Amino acid sequence: MEAAPPGSSRPTEPGPCLSGQRGADHAVSASLQSAAGTEPGRHPLAVAAVLPAGGCGERMGVPTPKQFCPILERPLISYTLQALERVCWIKDIVVAVTGENMEVMKSIIQKYQHKRISLVEAGVTRHRSIFNGLKALAEDQINSKLSKPEVVIIHDAVRPFVKEDVLLKVVTAAKEHGCSDYDLEFGTECLQLALKYCCTKVKLVEGSPDLWKVTYKRDLYAAESIIKERISQEICVVMDTKEDNKHIGHLLEEVLKSELNHVKVTSEALCHAGRHLQQIILDQCYNFVCVNVMTSDFQETQKLLSMLEESNLCILYPVVVVSVHFLDFKLVPPSQKMENLMKIREFAKEVKERNILLYGLLISYPQCLLPCTLEKLVISPWTSNDDQKLQESLRQGAIIIASLIKERNSGLIGQLLIA
Amino acid sequence: MEAAPPGSSRPTEPGPCLSGQRGADHAVSASLQSAAGTEPGRHPLAVAAVLPAGGCGERMGVPTPKQFCPILERPLISYTLQALERVCWIKDIVVAVTGENMEVMKSIIQKYQHKRISLVEAGVTRHRSIFNGLKALAEDQINSKLSKPEVVIIHDAVRPFVKEDVLLKVVTAAKEHGCSDYDLEFGTECLQLALKYCCTKVKLVEGSPDLWKVTYKRDLYAAESIIKERISQEICVVMDTKEDNKHIGHLLEEVLKSELNHVKVTSEALCHAGRHLQQIILDQCYNFVCVNVMTSDFQETQKLLSMLEESNLCILYPVVVVSVHFLDFKLVPPSQKMENLMKIREFAKEVKERNILLYGLLISYPQCLLPCTLEKLVISPWTSNDDQKLQESLRQGAIIIASLIKERNSGLIGQLLIA
Repeated sequence: MEAAPPGSSRPTEPGPCLSGQRGADHAVSASLQSAAGTEPGRHPLAVAAVLPAGGCGERMGVPTPKQFCPILERPLISYTLQALERVCWIKDIVVAVTGENMEVMKSIIQKYQHKRISLVEAGVTRHRSIFNGLKALAEDQINSKLSKPEVVIIHDAVRPFVKEDVLLKVVTAAKEHGCSDYDLEFGTECLQLALKYCCTKVKLVEGSPDLWKVTYKRDLYAAESIIKERISQEICVVMDTKEDNKHIGHLLEEVLKSELNHVKVTSEALCHAGRHLQQIILDQCYNFVCVNVMTSDFQETQKLLSMLEESNLCILYPVVVVSVHFLDFKLVPPSQKMENLMKIREFAKEVKERNILLYGLLISYPQCLLPCTLEKLVISPWTSNDDQKLQESLRQGAIIIASLIKERNSGLIGQLLIA
Repeated sequence: MEAAPPGSSRPTEPGPCLSGQRGADHAVSASLQSAAGTEPGRHPLAVAAVLPAGGCGERMGVPTPKQFCPILERPLISYTLQALERVCWIKDIVVAVTGENMEVMKSIIQKYQHKRISLVEAGVTRHRSIFNGLKALAEDQINSKLSKPEVVIIHDAVRPFVKEDVLLKVVTAAKEHGCSDYDLEFGTECLQLALKYCCTKVKLVEGSPDLWKVTYKRDLYAAESIIKERISQEICVVMDTKEDNKHIGHLLEEVLKSELNHVKVTSEALCHAGRHLQQIILDQCYNFVCVNVMTSDFQETQKLLSMLEESNLCILYPVVVVSVHFLDFKLVPPSQKMENLMKIREFAKEVKERNILLYGLLISYPQCLLPCTLEKLVISPWTSNDDQKLQESLRQGAIIIASLIKERNSGLIGQLLIA
């Protein structure tokens, strides 16, 4: 597996903004590039990374080596690779895996479209694995696309939350203290070994709590919850138009905003060739609430699903789509409408293949005759009692939406939930 | 808050078997009691525990002190108290809390029916809090129900998974090395302090990975997942009779068994005054699948809910009840039946107050005319195609049941899911 050219179909840089602070990350990235000597006009410092990933994960208590344990159905090591790939000044990433896991690793790289990755065979110990990785980088092999680096970062395959600023600290320290090509680990036994056996200066770089290592099964649980939380920070409410201020979609948007603190709720229209929506998808929002008010029950949802399928948003994380339908339970009993809406089960099965988790949500909407928008409704006599009921239904709907997004439960896809 | 007599309405001893190995735990408990000198005919070693719980949890990144952070809506410290309460040879548990949290702590003790707990005011540092706890145990106050112990275990309020065997090791070491009344912490700074300032021998006792401390927010996530996993190890399928081997409930039981590895699936009948079922409840099974085949849609589920409400099973953990209904979607469109089944929303709201999470599940059942059992069905012409479809529906139902039990999502209670 050789380093591939940049410009992949999956958005890798700046990459899924796990911190939820996209703007801030960009700023950090720019200053870091400059500090790492990669700004234009200056000779860039050649940095590579070696990931020893030959362990068998005996402390985990599960048969799968921990670096291959799935989190949201994706192996842990893929999250670590993603974290390193986001750092554009790391030119090559060398992963050391055992012979028996070589094919698994290759398929992971292919499936999640990882770039700049090379594979080497792991040694019998962690240090031998690191050595094999370094050797691959040091050798000027004719058919190798790897370039000899000045600094090599040794990073555990099971520390998926490493951030660019810590990596830069390590690289800067390595440059100053002359430890390049040596194991500059974050204060583990490697540091002691380097001090003992090598004629080199070693420096311990302060890490951050994010650097924690997945060691026990409980760490896998923690990692899954952290990842779920991070990709649940933004919800986009999609409707047929944004121009109509009284659109029921806006009403739902407002309730979502007031019910879900700490979550950014935006709205976008499906019309105008969906350009704004395309941008939301490119910006990696992983949660969509699609409001259906047109004649065909799933017209809006189907449009959105097509856009998502065409994008590559779902490669790294499962995307949640809640297809919302409004119904006056007094005029039309939910049962009557349900027959038709049950089609959602088939859609859900289909899009699950592409890592989209589709759920249906029926919201009670007094005196509403579909197709409609709120504008049409205000003409009809609407009591404050109805208004209260609608508010309560919307609130209930918001709770259900929040639950679905938080859990990303693939066992409940295609269900039609009622608010 | 004084020590209360044993024999509470909530089952505290052996207590919720978090390890899922009830039998093994009993055996351990017996040998431990003997080792701690508490078996009949021998003078029992007087052991007490002090929990410093005055911290503000600054590393957690949340405004609530970590010991009061909720896990499945119950504060973390209650889990730690539960772990200590299970150890019958710990006679008194003294918790040191700040003045401002005194009322919160009292309400936690009352709500979760904790026993043998005394409260003292925390000091400005952890060590002063420990000192206050020790003072309360050491003083022979007239109106104190606390008895002066020979050994005091100092245990962090935020280590909820401590096990009896580790506590026994500590007590045994304390007895041998004469550290009673002193801080025999698990290798923290307390050990250093004891060595430095006290004329006493100190011994470091090897802990276990279970002893980990909830420090960061990720640890709360991990703790929640561990607790959820531990209370999801057993499912009881409840039906109107167990005598009929071909009952649809048994069919569902079989599919659950084959689909859910690592989960113990049992079945019980509601009849015979539900004595067996009462035992299952007493044995602390937290997951029920209730099969409804009688004329009234919710007859079985309502019986089960009454039994659960009368028991005290739900005090410590939310109990999941999945109300299962069978329906031939070809003969009776789900919509037709749904009207009636929608009543589940009201039931669910009601029992949520008592910590029961109720969900509905409709399983497609070819050519079934309710009320029925499989026995009646085998008389009618049944194609292998129908058989396959039933198997697929049951399998789908098992996946949904597993999801509901795993997540314990209170946002989705009262929903009618379709398999």
